[in-house]
Amino acid sequence: MALKSFIEVHPDCHFPIQNLPFGVFRPEQGSAPRPGVAIGDYVLDLSEIASAGLFDGPILNNSDCFSEPNLNKFLALGRPAWKEARATLQRLLSSTEPALRDNGALRKKSFLPMDKAEMLLPVAVGDYTDFFSSMHHAKNCGTIFRGPQNPIPPNWFHIPIAYHGRASSIVISGTDIIRPRGQGQPTGNSPPYFGPSLKLDFELEMAAFVGPGNELGKPVDVNEAADHIFGLVLMNDWSARDIQAWEYVPLGPFLGKSFGTTISPWIVTLDALEPFSCDAPKQDPPPLPYLAEKISKNYDIALEVQIKPAGHKDSCVVTRSNFNNLYWTLTQQLAHHTVNGCNLRPGDLLGTGTISGPEPESLGCLLELTWNGQKPLSLNGINRKFLEDGDEVTFSGFCKGNGYTVGFGTCRGKIVPSSS
Amino acid sequence: MALKSFIEVHPDCHFPIQNLPFGVFRPEQGSAPRPGVAIGDYVLDLSEIASAGLFDGPILNNSDCFSEPNLNKFLALGRPAWKEARATLQRLLSSTEPALRDNGALRKKSFLPMDKAEMLLPVAVGDYTDFFSSMHHAKNCGTIFRGPQNPIPPNWFHIPIAYHGRASSIVISGTDIIRPRGQGQPTGNSPPYFGPSLKLDFELEMAAFVGPGNELGKPVDVNEAADHIFGLVLMNDWSARDIQAWEYVPLGPFLGKSFGTTISPWIVTLDALEPFSCDAPKQDPPPLPYLAEKISKNYDIALEVQIKPAGHKDSCVVTRSNFNNLYWTLTQQLAHHTVNGCNLRPGDLLGTGTISGPEPESLGCLLELTWNGQKPLSLNGINRKFLEDGDEVTFSGFCKGNGYTVGFGTCRGKIVPSSS
Ligand SMILES: [Ca+2]
Ligand SMILES: [Ca+2]
Ligand SMILES: [Mg+2]
Ligand SMILES: [Mg+2]
Ligand code: NI
Repeated sequence: MALKSFIEVHPDCHFPIQNLPFGVFRPEQGSAPRPGVAIGDYVLDLSEIASAGLFDGPILNNSDCFSEPNLNKFLALGRPAWKEARATLQRLLSSTEPALRDNGALRKKSFLPMDKAEMLLPVAVGDYTDFFSSMHHAKNCGTIFRGPQNPIPPNWFHIPIAYHGRASSIVISGTDIIRPRGQGQPTGNSPPYFGPSLKLDFELEMAAFVGPGNELGKPVDVNEAADHIFGLVLMNDWSARDIQAWEYVPLGPFLGKSFGTTISPWIVTLDALEPFSCDAPKQDPPPLPYLAEKISKNYDIALEVQIKPAGHKDSCVVTRSNFNNLYWTLTQQLAHHTVNGCNLRPGDLLGTGTISGPEPESLGCLLELTWNGQKPLSLNGINRKFLEDGDEVTFSGFCKGNGYTVGFGTCRGKIVPSSS
Repeated sequence: MALKSFIEVHPDCHFPIQNLPFGVFRPEQGSAPRPGVAIGDYVLDLSEIASAGLFDGPILNNSDCFSEPNLNKFLALGRPAWKEARATLQRLLSSTEPALRDNGALRKKSFLPMDKAEMLLPVAVGDYTDFFSSMHHAKNCGTIFRGPQNPIPPNWFHIPIAYHGRASSIVISGTDIIRPRGQGQPTGNSPPYFGPSLKLDFELEMAAFVGPGNELGKPVDVNEAADHIFGLVLMNDWSARDIQAWEYVPLGPFLGKSFGTTISPWIVTLDALEPFSCDAPKQDPPPLPYLAEKISKNYDIALEVQIKPAGHKDSCVVTRSNFNNLYWTLTQQLAHHTVNGCNLRPGDLLGTGTISGPEPESLGCLLELTWNGQKPLSLNGINRKFLEDGDEVTFSGFCKGNGYTVGFGTCRGKIVPSSS
């Protein structure tokens, strides 16, 4: 309740002692990547805390997982290790615990001002899967791409639909996104368009990092699926709508997506999100037994997208949505993913799909917001159908607690021109 | 021409000195994985050859790539290193070169009878992509899934269509395949079918291993794409047709594929395949400039599928096809994959798609061979619509040279029942 850190944290700051999200950073150029947690305006270097012998619980006691250049080994250890790490860190950072607070030498080498840290991908992603779990998004896309009769395919209400995405092009927040080139639908008898995408878009998503995962051939029960989800990040699934529309029949999106996917650097754990859990929507028709869960949870996470148009100083809010707009839960997604025996590995990434809400102001991408470019959006007087070179897109997300905020920071990327 | 090894090799053996495919093996249970090449009935241990200082060329001289547990580091070095390794090994293994031939101690520790070696995945696969490059297969599937009017979607003749596959469930030849469970199309108003797949199939494919790959945002020119392909393996893209048919609209195949993909253990290099290159088919309409290549190559690789039905001793040939049935070339596939800036990494795997020929005896999967189960196949008097538990499927592939064979060995898997 009144848990407080000796590090001062403003009530609006995303990183109080109640949060403690995990990431990987470099304290200076050329130094080795290492795990850290965010606390207030600082990053706490977990490799230093581990070296000092302060992870003294039974699981992490003898582990070298915090000397690794990514969190995969920590994720492989599973929920008991995650809970132990969180408990240890909440104790060490609390205002009443002297071990770190009163050790000046250790404080000096283990805290870095956040603005000095270079944040890196926190995890080596083995496989990346993107779901399609907002009904509003499915309905709008279906209407735009396939027409208003039956916009949502009949399988959608039975299956948490997903596709395999591209792992290699996942980048960390702040990385520029090069406008992809590719083919677009031909008009009449002419050959297809080829050139820089004319319909570059963002998709407002969140994504779950998996650990420890399952063996090939051994599905995860939906009621145990939460034990395989470490935490969440913000994700921008950049999408080239013209490339996607021309290529996606019959095998799904490919080059319209694989040029870049941006994630936020701090993984907020399910344990930190637990106070903000809420009921998932009632599902009708009822899900098949393998997807019917005893407790069906969503999370109340406020999401916002801002665009700073090329050459301008001010950002403009273009959408406000919420994680609780998802129809299929994270645990249903994970159970479905493994029901055929498919193995998940520590560090796999599961995107939720674009999180659109029911209101016109809560749509999660420009395709929906501008109705495929038919109704331009006004950003403080500047018109946008799709993203232009120089536009910068920033997502943020947070949960509001009593006197504190559990947040995700931001997920940001700027569009730069095609290289040739 | 008359290149001969001091290791005796039968003219029908797949692994003469002209081939020298790369793999990864364990000499005995519990020992460390290491790279090897196949020669006759032996595996040559490259870690021993490297330790003995016999890789004395300018690139491999100081490399530790053959002490790795996979070939990724070797693949990252690129074609000059691959050519150097091949030249060194052809010299060392030739009948006229004493360095290895006359060194009894080194021969003893570096050669292992092939039937004693446990073959492993040769590469840690980062991303796996599956193309759809046989026109016959595209036409047949389109007719079966979507009807005879316009069975091939209009984009197919402009785009080497592909989707992202699942990297985690790629397994080595010989691994049992557990029948996946999943949802199938509902009939009438009843809920969808759920249970073990009733339409389990194989797909006859080959796949290319990528090296060294490209940076994000830097497409590979189609005329330089061959420098990013190390070599080929046989691949069985096991497919559950009932799961696939119900899930694939609109985002493509997912659980109908991700339960397992089998590859053969020996990567046959493009250099070994070069004598068997042939013209690719003329493409009409002409491809867009970024896919128009100066030399458009296929390879004359004879492919065969055998099924040994559950409880029987004899295998039965069910199809004979050829790699040269592909419409889109490997180099076009790779150039297309990167044209949007998507980065390929050493060890990525690019499947060709099912290699069906034009004749009824050359179709690459049971979906086509039995026309979705409507015309059962007779295997020595035993009827099959789709694969049953206990069925074993074996692919083989080879190129016939003058007095020798450059082959891929086999790619094999047996179906075992769903676990629950
Ligand atoms: Ca998406
Ligand atoms: Ca396939
Ligand atoms: Mg993307
Ligand atoms: Mg497969
Ligand atoms: Ni992947």
